[in-house]
Amino acid sequence: MTKTAAVFLAEGTEEMEFSITYDILVRGGVKAQSVYVPAEGAPASPPNGMVTASRGVKLGVDTTLADLEKEGLATVDALIVPGGVGGANTISKNPSVLRLLKGAYEQGKIVGMICAGSLAALEAQIGVNKAITSHPSVKEKLSSSFQYQESNVVVAGPLITSRGPGTTFAFALTLVEKLMGAQVCQEITAPMMLSQEHL
Amino acid sequence: MTKTAAVFLAEGTEEMEFSITYDILVRGGVKAQSVYVPAEGAPASPPNGMVTASRGVKLGVDTTLADLEKEGLATVDALIVPGGVGGANTISKNPSVLRLLKGAYEQGKIVGMICAGSLAALEAQIGVNKAITSHPSVKEKLSSSFQYQESNVVVAGPLITSRGPGTTFAFALTLVEKLMGAQVCQEITAPMMLSQEHL
Repeated sequence: MTKTAAVFLAEGTEEMEFSITYDILVRGGVKAQSVYVPAEGAPASPPNGMVTASRGVKLGVDTTLADLEKEGLATVDALIVPGGVGGANTISKNPSVLRLLKGAYEQGKIVGMICAGSLAALEAQIGVNKAITSHPSVKEKLSSSFQYQESNVVVAGPLITSRGPGTTFAFALTLVEKLMGAQVCQEITAPMMLSQEHL
Repeated sequence: MTKTAAVFLAEGTEEMEFSITYDILVRGGVKAQSVYVPAEGAPASPPNGMVTASRGVKLGVDTTLADLEKEGLATVDALIVPGGVGGANTISKNPSVLRLLKGAYEQGKIVGMICAGSLAALEAQIGVNKAITSHPSVKEKLSSSFQYQESNVVVAGPLITSRGPGTTFAFALTLVEKLMGAQVCQEITAPMMLSQEHL
């Protein structure tokens, strides 16, 4: 069975974090899907099928949150929340996203969060009192509810968190390792011209 | 005057190389624009204003090659060719792109190429007999016309080349350094959670 990962995407998502994660999941043999999360009160789909990411890159939507909710989590093996302040705020305040994240975590499915995306762990109340990391700019909001760490990637059961664009390669490879195994992870590293120092 | 960079984009462009470069240019204060390059005989704009990148990420087009040609190079400070075999083939075989690259290079404007994108230097016959790098998969095509190097980033006058997704942070920061100065480059590195080992 092909493994499937849903990567949430909203206006203001960090484009490097989104693209690196999506791309590396696909290189690792995972079926990645971008799932559009509308701002409160906005239509289910974005205008022209695209969002404008945090630095202006336009990213297309594969499916919508409404569709993911209809389908449920049965065919999803991982849920990912990228950063970018605007995008992470929209995603981590959305009640449907929080329900899906909590459900996935409780079923032991992989839940990945990076940068300001880690705020979703607080909002969904998953992994509380366990290890977490995030972009330093949101550390203060997290440090009383979690065991905050400064590592590039933190694995705490099914919750995998990371720090920012510069740690996204390591984050995405950890997701691939958990979903597909260490061997796959190793095979895809060299062709990307990634050296060990990146990881 | 704001500096402007045009980043070529085609079906099959490598999404990490495109997004990291675009994002970091914008973080560095450069106005980045994606310029769609159609395959031979295809319409000037892609369907729905998006291309499908090499691993399935959908990337939106800011402007078209036809528009860039009309405007000319007067307001452009840098031209960038990302990799991804399919995208790099389309971009590096397009006669208008090659004219623009040659013109920019001869005027001393920054010309950046990464991964299979370095094939455009061969096709445009720019920087011949000077230092170059690329993804190893296209090394053979380049090594008789250039001084091929294995470094992550190679600067040979206005031509800046690099190797693949894992070297794109270093590539993009070199572009920012050349366009905006070393100070800007330093300022944007830490917030991205990039450590020195990435560079």
